[in-house]
Amino acid sequence: MSFSKRILVLLPAQEQHQLLLEQSAPGCLFSYSSYKTVTKDQVQDAQIIIGNPPADFVKDSPNLEWLHCNSAGVDAYLKKGILPKGTALTNSTGAYGLAVSEHMLGMLLEIMKRLHTYRDAQKLHVWKGQGKVRSIYNSTVLVLGMGDIGGEFAKKAKALGAYVIGVRRTRGEKPDYADELHLTEELDSLLPRADIVAVSLPETKDTYHLFSRERLALVKEGAVILNVGRGTVIDTEALCDALESGRLFGAGLDVTDPEPLPENHRIWDIPNAVVTPHISGLYHLQETLERVVRIAAENLKRYANGEPLNNVVDFSTGYRMKQ
Amino acid sequence: MSFSKRILVLLPAQEQHQLLLEQSAPGCLFSYSSYKTVTKDQVQDAQIIIGNPPADFVKDSPNLEWLHCNSAGVDAYLKKGILPKGTALTNSTGAYGLAVSEHMLGMLLEIMKRLHTYRDAQKLHVWKGQGKVRSIYNSTVLVLGMGDIGGEFAKKAKALGAYVIGVRRTRGEKPDYADELHLTEELDSLLPRADIVAVSLPETKDTYHLFSRERLALVKEGAVILNVGRGTVIDTEALCDALESGRLFGAGLDVTDPEPLPENHRIWDIPNAVVTPHISGLYHLQETLERVVRIAAENLKRYANGEPLNNVVDFSTGYRMKQ
Repeated sequence: MSFSKRILVLLPAQEQHQLLLEQSAPGCLFSYSSYKTVTKDQVQDAQIIIGNPPADFVKDSPNLEWLHCNSAGVDAYLKKGILPKGTALTNSTGAYGLAVSEHMLGMLLEIMKRLHTYRDAQKLHVWKGQGKVRSIYNSTVLVLGMGDIGGEFAKKAKALGAYVIGVRRTRGEKPDYADELHLTEELDSLLPRADIVAVSLPETKDTYHLFSRERLALVKEGAVILNVGRGTVIDTEALCDALESGRLFGAGLDVTDPEPLPENHRIWDIPNAVVTPHISGLYHLQETLERVVRIAAENLKRYANGEPLNNVVDFSTGYRMKQ
Repeated sequence: MSFSKRILVLLPAQEQHQLLLEQSAPGCLFSYSSYKTVTKDQVQDAQIIIGNPPADFVKDSPNLEWLHCNSAGVDAYLKKGILPKGTALTNSTGAYGLAVSEHMLGMLLEIMKRLHTYRDAQKLHVWKGQGKVRSIYNSTVLVLGMGDIGGEFAKKAKALGAYVIGVRRTRGEKPDYADELHLTEELDSLLPRADIVAVSLPETKDTYHLFSRERLALVKEGAVILNVGRGTVIDTEALCDALESGRLFGAGLDVTDPEPLPENHRIWDIPNAVVTPHISGLYHLQETLERVVRIAAENLKRYANGEPLNNVVDFSTGYRMKQ
């Protein structure tokens, strides 16, 4: 019997993307929608979903066999009672490293070179130096989460002359672009060494408030913190205090807790906080969409051929399973 | 007879810097001041000046043998009638590559990732995507001026995955970090290929308005221009027009024409213009001062020993002479 499934695609797929997906699973019935416009009926009817549907639409779906998320983080679908038992869950790890790591580097240099302050001065037509700056060169960078995103950022930091310390949850071989590789358990002894702390961790029970008030106090005076994983990894109030007191040189946050940031949240106005609205991984960079589609097409082909899927998420950890 | 000179140092030299300089030329009489506080009498009395004195103070000095500038650009001293005949002139090429190239990279990512626009949104407490972004990876970068600064920027761009085209005034061997090397004469045919045009040229008669209105029209639609050399290299009004019309994605300028930028200049308010007040090469980065002092100390030692100086400026071109 030939492979024939009802596949719902929730990506802004252009013509060439639709063609690529459909060629990967011939004989299937493809329909296209988006997170915003898709209906619960459409979601419940699908056997395969490519993209991220509203989590509550997925609940109790009688048909869903496989959800392939377009995101790297999949915490919304890991909660109990969301995905029907036995549903395969895969993510799009590999699509985001380029876009997010460049965004991280941009926020880092913005803070270290005080470009955010120069921007504020420009708005006021003020031609005036804004004080001491830092350099990536010769700095020590601690990278938490050495997956696609953290790894790409570590490579860039290394290429720009930083000393790179990678931190992983599990043991593994040290990649060339890291000078040291450690386990998360060793974090407390590593934090005082780092000029830059780059966080790209998913939301799991182990990462929630990993940067508690106590741990933030271990970060070196004058360091810069970047967060692009999930806002809940850092205790936001404690971070705000550390920024306002001047203990930290700055923070670059593409994720916050809560999200979206309420209009009256204190962090908006903290001078050394740089906030972007969780956009570094969106399709603002065309190449990110291209990568998402390529990863989905490859996985579709695997599913159609009965081969093991790529990027399978381990429900117990929220991370991609080792392959 | 032992080497004994009156040396005026116009650097913010800390104790360890003074020690290093004085050890390089034992037996000399050192005095310390700054651009702002030095008097004409002090300048006219000195036989050697380390640092940049006000140009009109130098005029007709009866004693000056050698001026070692702390800057890379020395155009202020190249004008006719400023330096006494026979005065040696050296610069501090080599001190600025790190600081300025990181600043360039910061401005570039700020523009490509729209971080300036996100900064403006942050000031308004607005959580909202600001549109399409670009990446350095896979872009084509044209680097004009492959000296210390341009070369360091080219290396960084290459390390981040760009295709790098270097442009030089004179023939030379292509460095590894450039994919192509061309002469300035070929500029018009190169401009349409570049996604990013990075300019770090000194002010000379040949570079004045090198980017005329006509040449700016050859720059690829949607490109980003960076300028960290001298503001006069670009026709500012034509640049403003190209930015406002949207033909250029953005411009990152650490130098402008005029300088300082008048309070009512139109460029302040152009949304895709990022302006910093000629600060990337200042001592805001401590390492820049360290490098300036090391270069000066090495040259002092050479002068004291009657050896050829490093970084001698060719009066006819304004560039460092080939060594």
